[in-house]
Amino acid sequence: MNPASFSAETITILAPGTVANVVCGFDVLGFALSHPYDTMKMRRTTEPGVVIINRDDYNLPTEPTRNVAGAALLALLRAVPDDVGFEVEITKGIRPGSGIGSSAASAAGAVVGANRLLGNIFSPAELVEFGTYGEEVASGVRHADNIAPCIYGGVTLIRSTTPLDIIPIAAPPLFVTVVHPQIEVKTSDARQILKKQILLRDAIIQWGNVGGLIAGLLQSDYDLIGRSLQDVIIEPVRSILIPCFAAVKTRSKAAGALGGGISGSGPSIFMLSRDEATAQRVESVMQEIYRAAGLDFHTYVSTINPDGVRILPAEAAVPVASSF
Amino acid sequence: MNPASFSAETITILAPGTVANVVCGFDVLGFALSHPYDTMKMRRTTEPGVVIINRDDYNLPTEPTRNVAGAALLALLRAVPDDVGFEVEITKGIRPGSGIGSSAASAAGAVVGANRLLGNIFSPAELVEFGTYGEEVASGVRHADNIAPCIYGGVTLIRSTTPLDIIPIAAPPLFVTVVHPQIEVKTSDARQILKKQILLRDAIIQWGNVGGLIAGLLQSDYDLIGRSLQDVIIEPVRSILIPCFAAVKTRSKAAGALGGGISGSGPSIFMLSRDEATAQRVESVMQEIYRAAGLDFHTYVSTINPDGVRILPAEAAVPVASSF
Repeated sequence: MNPASFSAETITILAPGTVANVVCGFDVLGFALSHPYDTMKMRRTTEPGVVIINRDDYNLPTEPTRNVAGAALLALLRAVPDDVGFEVEITKGIRPGSGIGSSAASAAGAVVGANRLLGNIFSPAELVEFGTYGEEVASGVRHADNIAPCIYGGVTLIRSTTPLDIIPIAAPPLFVTVVHPQIEVKTSDARQILKKQILLRDAIIQWGNVGGLIAGLLQSDYDLIGRSLQDVIIEPVRSILIPCFAAVKTRSKAAGALGGGISGSGPSIFMLSRDEATAQRVESVMQEIYRAAGLDFHTYVSTINPDGVRILPAEAAVPVASSF
Repeated sequence: MNPASFSAETITILAPGTVANVVCGFDVLGFALSHPYDTMKMRRTTEPGVVIINRDDYNLPTEPTRNVAGAALLALLRAVPDDVGFEVEITKGIRPGSGIGSSAASAAGAVVGANRLLGNIFSPAELVEFGTYGEEVASGVRHADNIAPCIYGGVTLIRSTTPLDIIPIAAPPLFVTVVHPQIEVKTSDARQILKKQILLRDAIIQWGNVGGLIAGLLQSDYDLIGRSLQDVIIEPVRSILIPCFAAVKTRSKAAGALGGGISGSGPSIFMLSRDEATAQRVESVMQEIYRAAGLDFHTYVSTINPDGVRILPAEAAVPVASSF
């Protein structure tokens, strides 16, 4: 199947990468990137069920119950009374296992697209709920900290998961530098090495920083944002899985970054900067470090994406998949 | 000694009560009350050291190293090169042991007053540092979550204690109802019953709520403030020390309160409301509950005090101590 064979109902969806946790906000904070993104083509079918077509070489499952977009769509379809189905063609722009919300992008893009094809019958919060069924396929946990910013755009706080309570947090202009060292860290492994119990003393430091980060974002206080990007609980455990983590962090901050840390469960590392020139200097620093270490890597410089998943007008040219 | 014997340098200080923790923000959040408050008269002496005079029946120590105002002033004096001393006359308007920052008020009032008498040579953050030496005398811990809002006014976030980083959080109009059941809960005991280790799962819920509360305050989102006033870590342990806690909370919310919980380490309970009429209804509910239980109690209805410690103009009449 190629794009020309789609009917007039075919829509094109751009589903961006996301950074979850944002250092101090494990499982509650996340933000959307402008790129990379997955490109999806989707149409409604009269045949019930979901058909997944992968347009890349990642060997992702096409069986809907085992595919993140498929599982999210099946969850959505359970809430639709009519007999309806979807066909989704996915071109991954976000490498699976990179730690910048690859699974979330496909799941979020699929449910936002389905909602459009159904006449926007679901709220964004309901779409996030459906999307988390995709995360369950990917990592065993129905977490929403990538799905929510992917659908809402910008920075989001998951105040509560039961019931789901998503708070959009207005942020000042910020530039994001991401480095993805080419090693594999499975989200499920990265979860398993965390301790189930933590010191109350450390938790207090952490929620002081969560409060500081939210206040810094809402008040456009860049210094406060930088001071609050500290994680005394998750980073000390998970960073040992990521080569050159300490060097990237120290030298990125020396190059002017406000701060940063592990993106999601890694292995990607992100850094926030106040302006694009600094974000590019940080990119150079990251490149130097991984070149010297002899490791393969990809880097991205992006703004925070205020819109989340986008649906292109029917006539728009399909964009070139993001540039890596 | 009576007020007439003070020299022209005598100042009058009003040091308000404070609510620390604010449900989800254990050890990091606090806000100032408009009343009750301590009234202090203070003058600079050429004799080095500190003289404390208590003008009430609480049998508080007058030895400066054992008195909260004294210990705070001694800490401040260690940072002053000149030979200088202070005489402080304290009339407690805030009952010791009530859980609404009685010790913090005396310590904060003393250091703010001393700073005025020295020509405002210290920053508010430095004054908070000095004030925490008073808290150490009271509870064994140099915590700043009452001292900071007492000095800054409004709502404050202690993002970090080392180094001290105090973030003022702008809040929309809020009315506070406080009930102080006449039982004693020592801050040191209330600290000791807390577990040193907590579940990561609970910590995540807590920092989601801290983020939600900060966002709710800064965005004047009353519903979000109410939803975020949840504590899954401290309240379940400490509330067992406070008679009728569950009834006060449930019935106050039924009467329209946004939410609330233990003030500091208790035994006072506070509730936030959007308007004064609701705050007064909540007061009636609290009164009914403790009357029915046959317990002595005091109640207060207050706004959040935007100013913190106030110094009266030299000619102002000394106000009547707050009305309980």
